[in-house]
Amino acid sequence: MPIAHASHAELLVSDIERSREFFTETFGLFVSDETDDQVYLRAWQDFDHHSLVLTRAPESGVAHISWRVEGPEDLNAFERKLKALGVDTWWVAGGTELGHGDALRFVSPSAGIPFELFWEVDRYVERDPAMQSKLPSHPQRFLGRGVSPRRFDHFNFLIDDVQTEQEWVSEHLGIRHNYYLAGQEELRLASWLAKTNLSHEIAFMRNRGQTGSHLHHVGYFLDAPDQLLRGATILMDAGYKIEWGPAAHGTSGANFLYVFEPSGHRVEVWTGGFLLFAPDHEPIRWDPETAPLGLEMWGSPMPETYLTYGTPLTPEIPAPTA
Amino acid sequence: MPIAHASHAELLVSDIERSREFFTETFGLFVSDETDDQVYLRAWQDFDHHSLVLTRAPESGVAHISWRVEGPEDLNAFERKLKALGVDTWWVAGGTELGHGDALRFVSPSAGIPFELFWEVDRYVERDPAMQSKLPSHPQRFLGRGVSPRRFDHFNFLIDDVQTEQEWVSEHLGIRHNYYLAGQEELRLASWLAKTNLSHEIAFMRNRGQTGSHLHHVGYFLDAPDQLLRGATILMDAGYKIEWGPAAHGTSGANFLYVFEPSGHRVEVWTGGFLLFAPDHEPIRWDPETAPLGLEMWGSPMPETYLTYGTPLTPEIPAPTA
Amino acid sequence: MPIAHASHAELLVSDIERSREFFTETFGLFVSDETDDQVYLRAWQDFDHHSLVLTRAPESGVAHISWRVEGPEDLNAFERKLKALGVDTWWVAGGTELGHGDALRFVSPSAGIPFELFWEVDRYVERDPAMQSKLPSHPQRFLGRGVSPRRFDHFNFLIDDVQTEQEWVSEHLGIRHNYYLAGQEELRLASWLAKTNLSHEIAFMRNRGQTGSHLHHVGYFLDAPDQLLRGATILMDAGYKIEWGPAAHGTSGANFLYVFEPSGHRVEVWTGGFLLFAPDHEPIRWDPETAPLGLEMWGSPMPETYLTYGTPLTPEIPAPTA
Amino acid sequence: MPIAHASHAELLVSDIERSREFFTETFGLFVSDETDDQVYLRAWQDFDHHSLVLTRAPESGVAHISWRVEGPEDLNAFERKLKALGVDTWWVAGGTELGHGDALRFVSPSAGIPFELFWEVDRYVERDPAMQSKLPSHPQRFLGRGVSPRRFDHFNFLIDDVQTEQEWVSEHLGIRHNYYLAGQEELRLASWLAKTNLSHEIAFMRNRGQTGSHLHHVGYFLDAPDQLLRGATILMDAGYKIEWGPAAHGTSGANFLYVFEPSGHRVEVWTGGFLLFAPDHEPIRWDPETAPLGLEMWGSPMPETYLTYGTPLTPEIPAPTA
Repeated sequence: MPIAHASHAELLVSDIERSREFFTETFGLFVSDETDDQVYLRAWQDFDHHSLVLTRAPESGVAHISWRVEGPEDLNAFERKLKALGVDTWWVAGGTELGHGDALRFVSPSAGIPFELFWEVDRYVERDPAMQSKLPSHPQRFLGRGVSPRRFDHFNFLIDDVQTEQEWVSEHLGIRHNYYLAGQEELRLASWLAKTNLSHEIAFMRNRGQTGSHLHHVGYFLDAPDQLLRGATILMDAGYKIEWGPAAHGTSGANFLYVFEPSGHRVEVWTGGFLLFAPDHEPIRWDPETAPLGLEMWGSPMPETYLTYGTPLTPEIPAPTA
Repeated sequence: MPIAHASHAELLVSDIERSREFFTETFGLFVSDETDDQVYLRAWQDFDHHSLVLTRAPESGVAHISWRVEGPEDLNAFERKLKALGVDTWWVAGGTELGHGDALRFVSPSAGIPFELFWEVDRYVERDPAMQSKLPSHPQRFLGRGVSPRRFDHFNFLIDDVQTEQEWVSEHLGIRHNYYLAGQEELRLASWLAKTNLSHEIAFMRNRGQTGSHLHHVGYFLDAPDQLLRGATILMDAGYKIEWGPAAHGTSGANFLYVFEPSGHRVEVWTGGFLLFAPDHEPIRWDPETAPLGLEMWGSPMPETYLTYGTPLTPEIPAPTA
Repeated sequence: MPIAHASHAELLVSDIERSREFFTETFGLFVSDETDDQVYLRAWQDFDHHSLVLTRAPESGVAHISWRVEGPEDLNAFERKLKALGVDTWWVAGGTELGHGDALRFVSPSAGIPFELFWEVDRYVERDPAMQSKLPSHPQRFLGRGVSPRRFDHFNFLIDDVQTEQEWVSEHLGIRHNYYLAGQEELRLASWLAKTNLSHEIAFMRNRGQTGSHLHHVGYFLDAPDQLLRGATILMDAGYKIEWGPAAHGTSGANFLYVFEPSGHRVEVWTGGFLLFAPDHEPIRWDPETAPLGLEMWGSPMPETYLTYGTPLTPEIPAPTA
Repeated sequence: MPIAHASHAELLVSDIERSREFFTETFGLFVSDETDDQVYLRAWQDFDHHSLVLTRAPESGVAHISWRVEGPEDLNAFERKLKALGVDTWWVAGGTELGHGDALRFVSPSAGIPFELFWEVDRYVERDPAMQSKLPSHPQRFLGRGVSPRRFDHFNFLIDDVQTEQEWVSEHLGIRHNYYLAGQEELRLASWLAKTNLSHEIAFMRNRGQTGSHLHHVGYFLDAPDQLLRGATILMDAGYKIEWGPAAHGTSGANFLYVFEPSGHRVEVWTGGFLLFAPDHEPIRWDPETAPLGLEMWGSPMPETYLTYGTPLTPEIPAPTA
């Protein structure tokens, strides 16, 4: 099981200037690198070069989601394994995306999720003396500016067939199934998975409209429930639309809010909840009676858009060589 | 302006055993006295004998809401003033309700709200050594049991004509108008008033169904937003229905949740928000465009019941003497 | 009792540039006005023009602390009363200090504290559209930048004779005595007083070195304990010295921290604690056994500087006219 | 690397009645089993049978600390490996300690820490309907009683030679070295290690008095900084001695407090801080200049007892068979 952890996402954004402003001024991420068409972002305690890439594009979408593997041998091993499964893979040379080495890419066969795996990575080093922390454990000074999450947390997708995707990802990528919502006649409504001790690093939720795969959101982690409420007030007063929350997932126990950034991607900021340590953890089942509490446990009503709206998956798949 | 502050409410409860259990085991109030048909309750830092009386009754309702005056002369002064206004008043002898002295009662002419005024009061003294605090500022030990609010805060009523009631209460009881919602054509939708520096001690909201005056809720104050979220989880897991929240009033800035206790009364627990100090404070106006943010500023949708459901006002008015 | 509430302080600062940077960038106040030699500051929900004035000076000190009175007649009434007590008073014309009208000044006879009283005041109006809030209750948009207190709270002085000053201020200025520390043989060690429902708006603590009157600190109020901890990390990582805290006063129940700003003034940021509503409130006594818990209730040791260090009082007293 | 995660400790307690009362009534753990001489405890979201065993004894001490392995084969593999290293091991039959299967025990060669490894475990099942949660993710209802940590977190030992122990534990038990304090001339002052993504599951700190190995503390995790402050007030008002905190470790970023339970063991309750995901994480070095911030980052002074006091290690080592 050589995947180590979820690392970052590349989001295509239709309005890169306003998305950049949202993520830096209000959401509280930091720019670690920038080109004419890309902004590389990280939370204040993300240790690697970036956890989010914004790429200028005519339409918003998701270019890839990226995972770090456990060691230098794992990329080739994954290439062989995927080929054996009949999954096309291709390489993106190190430095094409700044901050990490050669990357193996593929799309998952059922839901078409654009995965990337890599090993070599640049740890973030703060070069601006005014932004260096007094603490060796802080890759940069803590400013508390904006919502100010501590670190990247997870990805979530709205797809048509949750169970098939979950089973493929668990079996072939070794990402453990942690909890799920079971609908009538065992129709799988949602599944959450992780390789680390986090409650989840990737989730799949059933697209109510059955309109194919979309990004539901990327999630960042904040230190405390009170900071989530403070963040909600900052977002409201800056004019951004909170779709849902602050409220609480019964599944993980985490407190959350969802907000739309200016290019249309949904972003979650969340805090708290459980970690899972048992090596033989059995996925926790939420049946049709308890599922509503699983999604939200205090009684905050789910907005209609929550299970219907997402942003498209737009992997840049190379043309087959003749 | 001789009213000092809002003090307590007497609620008639149709199921006193279950209401008692809710308020003590889960909400976290303490019993300071008890008779066969009454339970006297206070929050852990309420300094007086009680801030809530539950009285056994066939139907739930509100017997009275009570205010302390600023000095011993004020009760008679109020009696004369109300008589001059044509408002009937009557006395309830000290000790009839435990914990305070002679009380002057009346109902407000427009909305029929059952007011009580009193001066003499018993300060709470903890007699159980195991419950005494190490701190002279704590009337009892802090246990943090249940939701555990610090103190009583305010009353709120659903009435048909907000403006008339607000103007009478401000003019004749000297309770300042602090903020209000103005609907179309200046129809007053809600008003919040206080004698102290609190954002409000009493509020009036327009009954959408125009079915007459009802108690909307009694409110208790909690120390921190995080404790509100903790309280929501305690209430949910104990099986109580949270009607709305945790969320945030834009008006006062306070974080809130509303829950129904077993006899049907709505109870609010809230925290934070502003205090008002200016002696010439002008009521803050929320017009039809901003009013929704005034009620809730993060986007949590108001439940239908919020402006339609309340519990009846049932003052025990003495028969006129022949 | 015509004083309404504590309003603001004028601090002389030996390094106005660095003090300005501290109060704006890190502490999170906002500049409402500025001249060559003065910076006018307010917290994000201070409703008036300013709650702090920094004035360029060769040595740090306190020019005056200022209180608003309850009505336009009160200034002249105070002038007559103080004259009758043999206390010199003088007027500072409205506009000399920006943001408020004519002010009456005097120093208290025992401790020499430089008081100012005023009535007319400019309410703060946000003119920058990017800084305007969506909420009528917010005088400006909430950014959450830096420590970001909600409002000014109180003054605290280190003086040689606490009891004499407390009694004069309570009797002649009508500011209620709320709680105190009694040392051996009833030597008064500290007293806290307020006109509003706050636990205190002004405090006096015994100067251990008996070196005369000094400002101990000015205090700002923050919304939540978690924000206090967040603020401590911001201050630490910005290189400022936290003298004490985050910790908890047993007296008021408030959570606190003290930090030194670059010109040497101690500043407190605090949150929570009680309000006092009883019109006949008796001062809460902390005797020699409980006094340590009164200062700090969790066991965080008091630093030596706490009862010895302050900044001088330097009122600008006009020369007597011949 | 077949250890999965830290699981529980068995503490010998000289006053089991008062220790039981502390851990249940005030600290907020729950009894999952009990015999005449043992109390089995768990936090409300500990998924396994227990995370702490209190065993009646004439003197307080530590019988063992226990870790779960990754699979059923790992116990025998560890037995062979330890034997090859010349470390004595012995088996304790499943059910001897309630709640888990056969256990392999040994003491580490340098510091003599009494380790236990096991595989089979009873997941906790709530049988009392009144204590069952509405949520499948909650092994029991959330009451929020007392300090109320969410789960067990870690062990910490005071030992004479930190580096030797850390290196043995990392090399032979596969527990990663995450951060450390380096003193003058590279004398290792403290090291923190984990197998999971937690900042640490076990730590070693240099015993200043060089009096041999002792338990420094067992640590439990709480959801939010505000709950830590609430917990401090509960502990103070119940008469327990807080040794240090609430304050903040710079190393992990966690907020903490230490309290002594009635039999003399130090207990930590903490919250927040970082998780570590990089498979090639290099231990973070705190040198003599930054080490004080590593121990506490806001400036709260370390008490003298912190690096000198612990409770003895008292493994029950079977007599060698002839």
